[in-house]
Amino acid sequence: MKIAMVGLGLIGGSAALDLRRAGFATRLVGVEANDAHARQALDLGLVDAVAPLEQAAAEADLVVLAVPVTAIAELLPRVLDVAGGTVTDMGSTKADIGRAVETHPQRHRYVAAHPMAGTEHSGPAAAHPGLFADKVAIVCDRERSGVEHLARVESMFRALGMRLTSMGAADHDLHVAYVSHLSHVSSFALATAVLAMEKDAGTIFDLASGGFASTVRLAKSSPAMWGPIFEQNADHVSAALAAYIAQLREFQHRLARRDFEGLESFMREANRIRPVLERIGRGPTS
Amino acid sequence: MKIAMVGLGLIGGSAALDLRRAGFATRLVGVEANDAHARQALDLGLVDAVAPLEQAAAEADLVVLAVPVTAIAELLPRVLDVAGGTVTDMGSTKADIGRAVETHPQRHRYVAAHPMAGTEHSGPAAAHPGLFADKVAIVCDRERSGVEHLARVESMFRALGMRLTSMGAADHDLHVAYVSHLSHVSSFALATAVLAMEKDAGTIFDLASGGFASTVRLAKSSPAMWGPIFEQNADHVSAALAAYIAQLREFQHRLARRDFEGLESFMREANRIRPVLERIGRGPTS
Repeated sequence: MKIAMVGLGLIGGSAALDLRRAGFATRLVGVEANDAHARQALDLGLVDAVAPLEQAAAEADLVVLAVPVTAIAELLPRVLDVAGGTVTDMGSTKADIGRAVETHPQRHRYVAAHPMAGTEHSGPAAAHPGLFADKVAIVCDRERSGVEHLARVESMFRALGMRLTSMGAADHDLHVAYVSHLSHVSSFALATAVLAMEKDAGTIFDLASGGFASTVRLAKSSPAMWGPIFEQNADHVSAALAAYIAQLREFQHRLARRDFEGLESFMREANRIRPVLERIGRGPTS
Repeated sequence: MKIAMVGLGLIGGSAALDLRRAGFATRLVGVEANDAHARQALDLGLVDAVAPLEQAAAEADLVVLAVPVTAIAELLPRVLDVAGGTVTDMGSTKADIGRAVETHPQRHRYVAAHPMAGTEHSGPAAAHPGLFADKVAIVCDRERSGVEHLARVESMFRALGMRLTSMGAADHDLHVAYVSHLSHVSSFALATAVLAMEKDAGTIFDLASGGFASTVRLAKSSPAMWGPIFEQNADHVSAALAAYIAQLREFQHRLARRDFEGLESFMREANRIRPVLERIGRGPTS
């Protein structure tokens, strides 16, 4: 299958590697606004060629948009204008992107998707095989897509080794605000709080255990990718952040009252995340 | 050397394993209030025998307190009353514990220490070799300890493969509030916020990527260990938590104003944690 990969960073580059390895892609054409990244992607063998957006989109059996979510919302109508095949995306928000093509005559060619995979790194050099394996791909608003387009995109995610699930775009954006986007906010703010206090990086290094490194890891994430996600999912992220701050204030309140029984019961409640994390660690069982 | 290990959980059990392996401990006597844990520690071969506190402390060359920090503050004077050798501890706070023995006639036998190592697991079964290797051990208020006692404790941490650093107890408690204790609060509250929203654990499982698992991992930590830490370090943890909430509110404010430039610069500031984390990942260079 001829695939146009729009965006050759961590996500697009990793998908290109595995789609070729799986034999799903027979030809891969990249679209990349950053010339240095385009050259790097060619050098790394992520794609066979690079081409302008409209040309690549018109010639492909499947167009995959793997750029920041505001760019997806902007490019998707242009891609649908020229596409003769199937179009999908890998963005972390779904409602705004869906609205951008709601009345497009080719809407049925588009399958709204979100593979739940990534790392805190970015760019073509961060691409690596196996990024998507055993993770979940969410397909949204399936009823808006043509059956042959759904089948093609779902077989692509299966070729990446992913488990499929589906939900409405609005539900998707609500849940990912809590389970994914909020983790990033909490890490970014933990980093700025600690950096503001500890002017001497050596002190952080001396005192930081693996626990700190794990909690703050997502603070390394790309602002260019996450800015647009927070922009598109601002309302849900605001609500999730308010709920998080309310929990922290409850903790703070119990600490101020020296209510250590209350703090322990707060922590016992938090411990209920344990079986969920153990299930994530084990990977899919179905 | 004859060692009395007071507390046979993750920390005490792991230390026992490595001190024996390194040839530093020739005999290990455990003290453990929980009978099931005591039997388990014997079954696992963590210690040669278990004994009551005063007996074990009187007979040992080195007594190591590896119990929750409020228990350390309570047991330390009793141990110093009978000890003929050296006494140290592995608690995550130092000022309160130091105050408990400030005027004790045997204060010079005690070396206040905090090995920066641990996991979110607890109990004798969680003990494992190598837990302390390449981590930092902080020795506090060195001037209060006798030179031969300092030498003995520092050689113990070196036998565990640790790098040594030192600071005052008050400084220690301030810095660990930010770099260690705050990470735990942020994880506990992230878990309770997500669990309150997502009644269906299956949804968390479907949507959670490795990023969520990493950020929330510390929420699995033991309330029995962390309650006393928050109790003893309440003032510094309150200040750190207030600073963290202020950062989150700044993020929330920029989001509410749709100030996406401001959000990106917030994230770029957070990205400055990157070289620190890379240094932690690489381990000690000195």
